Amino acid sequence: MPSGEIRYQPPSPPRTSSMDSCEDEGWVWAQIKAEARRDADAEPALASYVYSTILSHSSLARSISFHLGNKLCSSTLLSTLLYDLFLSFFSTEPSLRSATVADLRAARMRDPACTSFSHCLLNYKGFLACQAQRVAHKLWNQSRRPLALALQSRIADVFAIDIHPAAKIGKGVLFDHATGLVVGETAVIGNNVSILHHVTLGGTGKESGDRHPKIGDGVLIGAGATILGNIKIGEGAKIGAGSLVLKDVPPRTTAVGNPARLVGGKDQPAKHE
Amino acid sequence: MPSGEIRYQPPSPPRTSSMDSCEDEGWVWAQIKAEARRDADAEPALASYVYSTILSHSSLARSISFHLGNKLCSSTLLSTLLYDLFLSFFSTEPSLRSATVADLRAARMRDPACTSFSHCLLNYKGFLACQAQRVAHKLWNQSRRPLALALQSRIADVFAIDIHPAAKIGKGVLFDHATGLVVGETAVIGNNVSILHHVTLGGTGKESGDRHPKIGDGVLIGAGATILGNIKIGEGAKIGAGSLVLKDVPPRTTAVGNPARLVGGKDQPAKHE
Amino acid sequence: MPSGEIRYQPPSPPRTSSMDSCEDEGWVWAQIKAEARRDADAEPALASYVYSTILSHSSLARSISFHLGNKLCSSTLLSTLLYDLFLSFFSTEPSLRSATVADLRAARMRDPACTSFSHCLLNYKGFLACQAQRVAHKLWNQSRRPLALALQSRIADVFAIDIHPAAKIGKGVLFDHATGLVVGETAVIGNNVSILHHVTLGGTGKESGDRHPKIGDGVLIGAGATILGNIKIGEGAKIGAGSLVLKDVPPRTTAVGNPARLVGGKDQPAKHE
Repeated sequence: MPSGEIRYQPPSPPRTSSMDSCEDEGWVWAQIKAEARRDADAEPALASYVYSTILSHSSLARSISFHLGNKLCSSTLLSTLLYDLFLSFFSTEPSLRSATVADLRAARMRDPACTSFSHCLLNYKGFLACQAQRVAHKLWNQSRRPLALALQSRIADVFAIDIHPAAKIGKGVLFDHATGLVVGETAVIGNNVSILHHVTLGGTGKESGDRHPKIGDGVLIGAGATILGNIKIGEGAKIGAGSLVLKDVPPRTTAVGNPARLVGGKDQPAKHE
Repeated sequence: MPSGEIRYQPPSPPRTSSMDSCEDEGWVWAQIKAEARRDADAEPALASYVYSTILSHSSLARSISFHLGNKLCSSTLLSTLLYDLFLSFFSTEPSLRSATVADLRAARMRDPACTSFSHCLLNYKGFLACQAQRVAHKLWNQSRRPLALALQSRIADVFAIDIHPAAKIGKGVLFDHATGLVVGETAVIGNNVSILHHVTLGGTGKESGDRHPKIGDGVLIGAGATILGNIKIGEGAKIGAGSLVLKDVPPRTTAVGNPARLVGGKDQPAKHE
Repeated sequence: MPSGEIRYQPPSPPRTSSMDSCEDEGWVWAQIKAEARRDADAEPALASYVYSTILSHSSLARSISFHLGNKLCSSTLLSTLLYDLFLSFFSTEPSLRSATVADLRAARMRDPACTSFSHCLLNYKGFLACQAQRVAHKLWNQSRRPLALALQSRIADVFAIDIHPAAKIGKGVLFDHATGLVVGETAVIGNNVSILHHVTLGGTGKESGDRHPKIGDGVLIGAGATILGNIKIGEGAKIGAGSLVLKDVPPRTTAVGNPARLVGGKDQPAKHE
């Protein structure tokens, strides 16, 4: 199935309980620092950049808050304000940090072009937009909506990725390339989902209220796919590049074409509805 | 019909003659200031941002000129120069201001995710790109073409929206999400048109001169639609998400698919020419 | 064939040997300076911009290095560092400069909206992204991969164009509008290729290693086309707007649709393999 630049992996098994999420975060952060030191040594032109974004920070939470603050600031929305805002969430919400770590692992595992954790942390705008949206989502749920919407707007300007702060996003998510991704207000994205660039999870324009797609765990959505309406894309389904999907897709089933038709799957018939 | 995140509304009736466009502009600007005050009070982190972009300004023309200057400036194209440029047009051309007001109303009315006028003014890149393009269009018509093209380029860099300054755009237009919108030199967009993201109004590559689409009043164009050539999309027509349209579409008719086929409408047959 | 905003031209004949590439570069640079002087005289608002980007520089290599450094810099990746980096390549690699000149000529010849060389140099993000990617490609081949990847990321943020530094790009290339262009790691783009916006040269997700398309000389790829897998698009072929291409396309043949079908060509049958 065409999907653009990712290698499909079924949802990873849950990590063994012997490694709790703090240890996992510590291990990934140690990896990132080691990679950054290696890169700074090999490339003096990068040393200052790598130092300010990674090596000068005492934690992944601080590093990512600094990096997002710098990327998303403007002359009227200062980087210091954004840094404090991001850090206040990342330092106090372990669930945010474990989602970050799961996303870093997803990129390393499912994108053959992702060569290191630090490459993803520094350079993947889909990864960065996702981390910033999760903070905007927290703000939205605290009824700090104008600030949540201001963040959404900065993410849309800086990364060309437009995710409504009310949208719910799981863990272990890969937004690959990510330019042009649009995710509507009432969309839900499950765990271990991979979404390529130019994908729309939008409304049909005929409904209000709960009007956007619900994407199950482990789904893969190819480049340029457009999925509209309050429909379900079942667990482990695959949506082909350039597809237009307007109806539910059963679990572990592949849908392709404009309009999309089902083309079979492990457990499912090839009929759409 | 699939269209992405907008609620379709037929073209609004003309406003009653008892409210002239100056009064309307004053009313909308008063609303924006009231919304901004409420947001600044509720969210101290936004106070400085909201003050500098809205509350410190004495008019909508000044607020939007400041905001566009800040968004579109670069180290070689200074915000002060852009502010003076935008203000010189917005303060002297009532038609520009009434188009701005009509666009603000269109977003509030037709986009269920648009919660306030100030949300649109501050955050909607489709709205901001449209306002900047109207100024670039004035420059183009005054034969100040290098400056018009420099503005087009900044809009394309900052918002990922590429509208040629020669293109003609009506009032009450909603460019929703707007990432990836491309509008060619000889395209015309009517009044009360709604266009989603990733839409192309382009040429076929086989013509020169007048080579781009003409979009009638009240048309709705879904996400990812590609409309090519000097063709007419009739008043009130709807173009489905992901469609490829290479022929005229009659008024009040719906076209979907790649290549697009007509699927009926109130007054029109379902045949494509 | 639908293709978006470009006028198709077959690959230009090789330039006569009486004009070597140095002379050609000198002639184009002289044109650019003359255009810039004319624009600065006619539009005082642009004078400082045009002076800093073009007129103050003693060569095309310096002008483009300054312009790219300014466009791609960030608060942690300084413009002076990027300027020195770009200049070190453009000043010592004649092949980079002749590719730049060929790209400038391609835009002037094949894009009816391109009114001057300086317009392309200053304003075309597809052109600028391509020049920066060629430097990133050199870095990649020198095993300076973290810096190459940092450049890719800046190009993706600033221009919404995502080209892997390992991808090989020929000369005389036109990336028109260019927003949303995604080119994978093992893709190859020949000489005199024209590619519109929202085009993906990606992987199918089922392969690793050499997994991206190979685009022959003189190919034209319309807006929104998605080409996936290690397939060949033969010399002079045309790919219609919005097509999904998963199989080889023979030389001088046109492919359209989702999934794409062949629709004939000068020398070739209309059957897809």
